[in-house]
Amino acid sequence: MVGDKFETFNSQKLQIQTCAELKPLIPENKLVFGKNFTDHMITIEWDAESGWDKPNIKPYGKLELEPSAVVFHYGFECFEGMKAYKDAQGHVRLFRPEMNMARLNKSSSRLCMPTFDPEELIKVITEFLRIENRWISSKRGYSLYLRPTVIGTQSSLGVRAPNKVLLFVIASPVGPYFSTGVKAVSLLASTEYVRSWPNGTGDCKIGGNYAPCARPQLIASEKGYQQNLWLFGDDDEVTEAGTMNFFMLWENPNTGRRELVTPPLNGLILPGITRDSIIQLVRSWEAETGIHVREGKITMADIIHAVDDNRILEMFGTGTACIVSPIKSIGYKGKDIQILLRRSKSDSEAGPLTMKINAAILDIQYGVVEHHFSRVII
Amino acid sequence: MVGDKFETFNSQKLQIQTCAELKPLIPENKLVFGKNFTDHMITIEWDAESGWDKPNIKPYGKLELEPSAVVFHYGFECFEGMKAYKDAQGHVRLFRPEMNMARLNKSSSRLCMPTFDPEELIKVITEFLRIENRWISSKRGYSLYLRPTVIGTQSSLGVRAPNKVLLFVIASPVGPYFSTGVKAVSLLASTEYVRSWPNGTGDCKIGGNYAPCARPQLIASEKGYQQNLWLFGDDDEVTEAGTMNFFMLWENPNTGRRELVTPPLNGLILPGITRDSIIQLVRSWEAETGIHVREGKITMADIIHAVDDNRILEMFGTGTACIVSPIKSIGYKGKDIQILLRRSKSDSEAGPLTMKINAAILDIQYGVVEHHFSRVII
Repeated sequence: MVGDKFETFNSQKLQIQTCAELKPLIPENKLVFGKNFTDHMITIEWDAESGWDKPNIKPYGKLELEPSAVVFHYGFECFEGMKAYKDAQGHVRLFRPEMNMARLNKSSSRLCMPTFDPEELIKVITEFLRIENRWISSKRGYSLYLRPTVIGTQSSLGVRAPNKVLLFVIASPVGPYFSTGVKAVSLLASTEYVRSWPNGTGDCKIGGNYAPCARPQLIASEKGYQQNLWLFGDDDEVTEAGTMNFFMLWENPNTGRRELVTPPLNGLILPGITRDSIIQLVRSWEAETGIHVREGKITMADIIHAVDDNRILEMFGTGTACIVSPIKSIGYKGKDIQILLRRSKSDSEAGPLTMKINAAILDIQYGVVEHHFSRVII
Repeated sequence: MVGDKFETFNSQKLQIQTCAELKPLIPENKLVFGKNFTDHMITIEWDAESGWDKPNIKPYGKLELEPSAVVFHYGFECFEGMKAYKDAQGHVRLFRPEMNMARLNKSSSRLCMPTFDPEELIKVITEFLRIENRWISSKRGYSLYLRPTVIGTQSSLGVRAPNKVLLFVIASPVGPYFSTGVKAVSLLASTEYVRSWPNGTGDCKIGGNYAPCARPQLIASEKGYQQNLWLFGDDDEVTEAGTMNFFMLWENPNTGRRELVTPPLNGLILPGITRDSIIQLVRSWEAETGIHVREGKITMADIIHAVDDNRILEMFGTGTACIVSPIKSIGYKGKDIQILLRRSKSDSEAGPLTMKINAAILDIQYGVVEHHFSRVII
């Protein structure tokens, strides 16, 4: 297949250079997502002639690149977001890391950059986490966010498969997404800006999908909304909510059935790992909850009719950062559509299913419940 | 307007640090587009608190950036391509530089990065070219390619307006696009990959528009075509050819009139400066040539019917690199549509209008003919 270069690097050739002096840990109340990074980083270079070089763990530090490097000009860049958790026994766990590796390979390949053996990068990340272990808190809600990134470093201008690439992984300690009870967000449904399109790149985690969202996000924010709700097509099909996948618990008007519905993987949305996990979990609960899971198109008209009929029970976005983020209103064509929240508790703006999903995933991530989604690596 | 930060840097505060040792010039027969760069570069930093810093001219060298810099993750990057020419009197000229500056501001603003006063950057570039003057050949077809670039350098992860930005300009000496007579290219009309979409970013010169084109380009190349022809929509509307705008000289089936037609600026295509210049020039020739210029939709069906009726006279792509690049065939749905070339000369695969345009623009760029498109700066 074009762009596939499945030679891989070898985790056994890992070269480790540790810091002479370590940074102080960040106090829990000062943790800001993606602001502070640990002492070390992973770097692995690739070039078209010799393939992948040895993996390195080395002190966290600046990248030095020619100003002509294609990552600065043509968006040759893709990334993943994943977390390392510590369980009560002190073991370090990853949540479905093979899914992140597979998606990084898909994104990299889409941009004509090389792929690698997923398990080899997981092994290197394992050694990295052994060194950075002190940065991983075992408190529920705390974790070490990992950012594997692939960039094109070829230093001559040309829109073609880069002849040099750098894979790096950096890590940032993070705290709970909701520090004072789960809060629901308001979304502005965007029709002026369209995030993705058929036969485009909306299903890849590539740099170019993100920067164009800053401006619509700023507009939403200035109008008092927290995020955008991305729509597509003449019938205003719902695709994503900000950088989250979209879910709705409703009564299906045709079947009368209680359904958790989410947009399908039709190329317009990112195939979220939290999304996939939620689909699997809620499906496994169907006998108990009576809730059917369906991947299917949702239009703004569907939502408006369902709100009018009082058929929407819960609505939320999902992602690695928040797990679930309940939605309380949608600004659309100058009006606010209020989503009636079924509050599970007085301090929570999330409904019972939303909170059940959140708790189930946290329990798996922190090893409270053993589940094949969680992999003990240390 | 959201994202507009029209404070500007001040060219009078320019700081210049020159190299102790200069590089040898590249022999004319060794010039490769975007591979070698001159001795110096322009850098101008911006941050959200203090705005633009002083402009700098300093030795060409690596950029040092945190691995968390948003340019590596979210595609906060936009650029321009323009050329400096030397005329027979030794004067240095730019071709409509204010258009490149305006488009860079548009692209930067679209990504919530700052804008600047176009004339201030032209003044800094002028000083830069005074220093790099020896790199500019006065031979027709030779020039110094300039690459102004704006990148987000904020070193914390977040998809929002970057709080730090770097504007830089690098320069690469280039030779003629066609070294041995104008050659026509074959295009593969792409329906599996779509470059841009309504309310997207196809009309901005941002990094994210480019890397996704590498894979379709590789597929086209493996099938024996030189570039992609980008289509959009159910009726296979022609948008761009590779990274060029698209033009066709044909007899309009409705009017019988000889027409130079090019896709309109509907958001799906880059507003090319060469495109705009060609429209203006050919319009100015209408009394002489009888050729009417029209910006209008062109579908693959239009092209197929016109080929069947022998109504296509010339077809070409346009851009800063090539000026014009004639098209001889289009692969579409498994068949090759042959465009009958009206050769202007035995060693040229371009038609008379294509060559007239090429010569007229070269004459303006090199100051053979005085025209307001060409600005003498030194």
